[in-house]
Amino acid sequence: MAKINQAACIGGGVIGGAWAARFVLAGIDTRIFDPHPEAQRLMSEVMANAERAYEMLTRAPLPVKGTLSFSGSIEDAVRGAEWIQESVPERLDLKRSVLAQIDAAADPKALIGSSTSGLMPTDLQRDMKHPERMFVAHPYNPVYLLPLAELVGGQKTTRAVLEDAKVKLATIGMTGLIINKEIEALVGDRLLEAFWREALWLIKDDVCDAETLDNVIRYSFGLRWAQMGLFETYRITGGEAGMRDFLSKYGSSLSWPWSKLTDVVDLDADLVEKIAVQSDAQSGQRGIRELERIRDQNLVGIMQALKVGDEGRGWGAGKLLAEFEAHLWKTAPTLRANPSNGALKLLELKVPAAWIDYNGHMTEYRYTQCFADACDALLQLIGADIEYVKAGHSYYTVESHVRLLAEAKLGDALYVKAQLLPSDGKKIHTFMWLYQASDETLLSTYEQLMLHVSSKENRSIPPLPEVMRKLKPLIEAHAVLPAPDAAGRSVGQRK
Amino acid sequence: MAKINQAACIGGGVIGGAWAARFVLAGIDTRIFDPHPEAQRLMSEVMANAERAYEMLTRAPLPVKGTLSFSGSIEDAVRGAEWIQESVPERLDLKRSVLAQIDAAADPKALIGSSTSGLMPTDLQRDMKHPERMFVAHPYNPVYLLPLAELVGGQKTTRAVLEDAKVKLATIGMTGLIINKEIEALVGDRLLEAFWREALWLIKDDVCDAETLDNVIRYSFGLRWAQMGLFETYRITGGEAGMRDFLSKYGSSLSWPWSKLTDVVDLDADLVEKIAVQSDAQSGQRGIRELERIRDQNLVGIMQALKVGDEGRGWGAGKLLAEFEAHLWKTAPTLRANPSNGALKLLELKVPAAWIDYNGHMTEYRYTQCFADACDALLQLIGADIEYVKAGHSYYTVESHVRLLAEAKLGDALYVKAQLLPSDGKKIHTFMWLYQASDETLLSTYEQLMLHVSSKENRSIPPLPEVMRKLKPLIEAHAVLPAPDAAGRSVGQRK
Repeated sequence: MAKINQAACIGGGVIGGAWAARFVLAGIDTRIFDPHPEAQRLMSEVMANAERAYEMLTRAPLPVKGTLSFSGSIEDAVRGAEWIQESVPERLDLKRSVLAQIDAAADPKALIGSSTSGLMPTDLQRDMKHPERMFVAHPYNPVYLLPLAELVGGQKTTRAVLEDAKVKLATIGMTGLIINKEIEALVGDRLLEAFWREALWLIKDDVCDAETLDNVIRYSFGLRWAQMGLFETYRITGGEAGMRDFLSKYGSSLSWPWSKLTDVVDLDADLVEKIAVQSDAQSGQRGIRELERIRDQNLVGIMQALKVGDEGRGWGAGKLLAEFEAHLWKTAPTLRANPSNGALKLLELKVPAAWIDYNGHMTEYRYTQCFADACDALLQLIGADIEYVKAGHSYYTVESHVRLLAEAKLGDALYVKAQLLPSDGKKIHTFMWLYQASDETLLSTYEQLMLHVSSKENRSIPPLPEVMRKLKPLIEAHAVLPAPDAAGRSVGQRK
Repeated sequence: MAKINQAACIGGGVIGGAWAARFVLAGIDTRIFDPHPEAQRLMSEVMANAERAYEMLTRAPLPVKGTLSFSGSIEDAVRGAEWIQESVPERLDLKRSVLAQIDAAADPKALIGSSTSGLMPTDLQRDMKHPERMFVAHPYNPVYLLPLAELVGGQKTTRAVLEDAKVKLATIGMTGLIINKEIEALVGDRLLEAFWREALWLIKDDVCDAETLDNVIRYSFGLRWAQMGLFETYRITGGEAGMRDFLSKYGSSLSWPWSKLTDVVDLDADLVEKIAVQSDAQSGQRGIRELERIRDQNLVGIMQALKVGDEGRGWGAGKLLAEFEAHLWKTAPTLRANPSNGALKLLELKVPAAWIDYNGHMTEYRYTQCFADACDALLQLIGADIEYVKAGHSYYTVESHVRLLAEAKLGDALYVKAQLLPSDGKKIHTFMWLYQASDETLLSTYEQLMLHVSSKENRSIPPLPEVMRKLKPLIEAHAVLPAPDAAGRSVGQRK
């Protein structure tokens, strides 16, 4: 895929800063221009959140981080950038002038995306000399986790630019949905605005308070929409009778008094105060940063759950995550390099929320998952990857032994080292150690035996030569290492 | 909690049938009245889906299923029922007449809930002799998984009835949100209707197709709403500036042309056809039952992910699941019974989608999870439960050995048996077997050593007497059992 080598973010607030974090974590050098006096502090907070989330989100090998720097001018920020993202406040005159400045200083081939939530690209690109490469790329907060950008071109934008943008977004884990018709507020914000206006009426009319309304959403259709959206959900509701029948039945309710949106609510000072008080009652006991952490942890958990939806093939945002991980595995430079002669460092991760038990510690089977994920990394390293499995060969774990020596907590940075014990390739015998990165505390050890199998013949056979070629030097290099103390232990054995 | 012993479902379609499934799985004998010629077939399909989902959803001990039967009349169905749920088609005259029939035949103290999506309880209860116990209990599809019922009383409904309904719903894993003001369409359907109307405009105006619209939702705000709803999400968007500042800024967009809902869309035959064709293109390659399975698997995954949100304390629907599981553990009758003298059957489950790897098999660390969950069941059995942990004592696994002997696939029914090896209580040494329920294939064995610890003193101490009292007879009963062949194995050891 066409990788971006350098990016620029003009505007580094909640949205622009999170774009920058996404670029940097995808290995892209990124320059920010933002005249806000606190821009650097805010950016460092967004970056910390984003890094914490990514280390929980995926065990695929993230590239070496790009550099992040602040520029003193728009001209300096955009020089050499291949993707420039404008995220300044939502005022047409301001955005036009900023885009004209970007346009004048940028490489004429650089892509220029605007994060606007509702201004039209035709209006935004009016004063540009190279308007054909300017488009709306509308993301959703938190931009570093949510994988959507709505892509909309103006009258002067070329289709090729939108297609190119879509390809480039995939390399940073986002999907670009090209919207063919230019409208105010895009698709997402149109839907959100209708929903928001109805919600305001419900609060204004004292039908419920903010917390009840949120609970209604997150205990019911929010759980459906996270995976299937609106129409696919209703297709199921229609059941055997089908979508046409469902729509015909539903049609009549359009004339019922089920929405107040033929009137526009007045969000006056009283209503603002009412909602603010209710929101304080609902969420005020937690700070914004704490809420952000909880939101991000939940997003990580939901996306990981959906990654195995549809019987292991991934569903919705989880499918996008699986595709991004496949991209990361393919492009990871470390896998091409020769391993060192010592024990291999196979995996680094942070402990996600979903791994914590009611003791507040990482739960037992997640230790095994750390080692199983490390084992996946080892198999990638020797070429026994997903393509190899699809072609009919695989390594299966047949036996393992774990010692749990110390506890890990939410957010702890961990890593796994591995050593091959005497192995012939048809069998691979490994020993692994799980450490706390901060102080090198040994948390756990793992001894494991894998067998190479032909899934067609359903029996153990030697690996294909291409795998043996990579595995053999590893086995030989590790043959000279001392045997780990705990290798060969049985459960409860005295030292 | 005030358990329901007998329930009746009047109307057994998509909604009524799923209510029935929820009752039955919570151990409640349930009678259905539905004159539809295919009612029994449809119910058996809903029940199969619900059972499949529940066995994936939780490893907490579900009670013995209630009996499910069909009645030939409303009178027969409601006799003796403590909760009667009306889910007949959405016509005021029909619902009124059905509710009057229910009212006349039911125990005067029985609760009567209506599943209506929009009719007002005051209108529904008009002809009833005991209207004070009638209310709207509006669920969301699939009712057996989504935990919300909006509770709304009519003018004659008493508050005590709504409070009682809320308590009873908790025993079947649902949360009843009491809505204080009676309106058409309730809170959820008002929000859905506004959203739906805006979506229809977007399709009618060719801004996007149904699949793109669904993707916009499920790649962005759907993921947010599954956990935090609307206001809490926007509170975070407001960031450090706070909710008041955010609302003031957002207010101006209400006057922008960001919604078309001051007009009502005409869902005429052309628009119905257009959406149906787009929906076929998006989802037509899968049948309704397949889509239902995928939806349910994803819901299970999302709810399980949220169960450990907020650092192990649960968040949103996951918090509700955790509360339901705590209720199940407390009320599980099997835990009160004396264990048999042979190996203990500790756990039954079905393999959920989230446990499948890219080979299509249950992935390695989920075997360990089966045993860890079985171990939790054992600890519950001897009284080392969550309260015991909160009071400062716990058993920690320090060492384990797993053999993986055969594969499990999505949806397979599995169970775990366990035997205690010689143990003094301060140490518990166990051996467990994981079997396929269908043909008794042995899939895996597990040997484990646990230590009892004082979390305050951070050292191993003997268990409290109340635990030892339950544990000792088990240890003694198992002392006479033969030692399992594989006990004491090290990895790769010859037999």
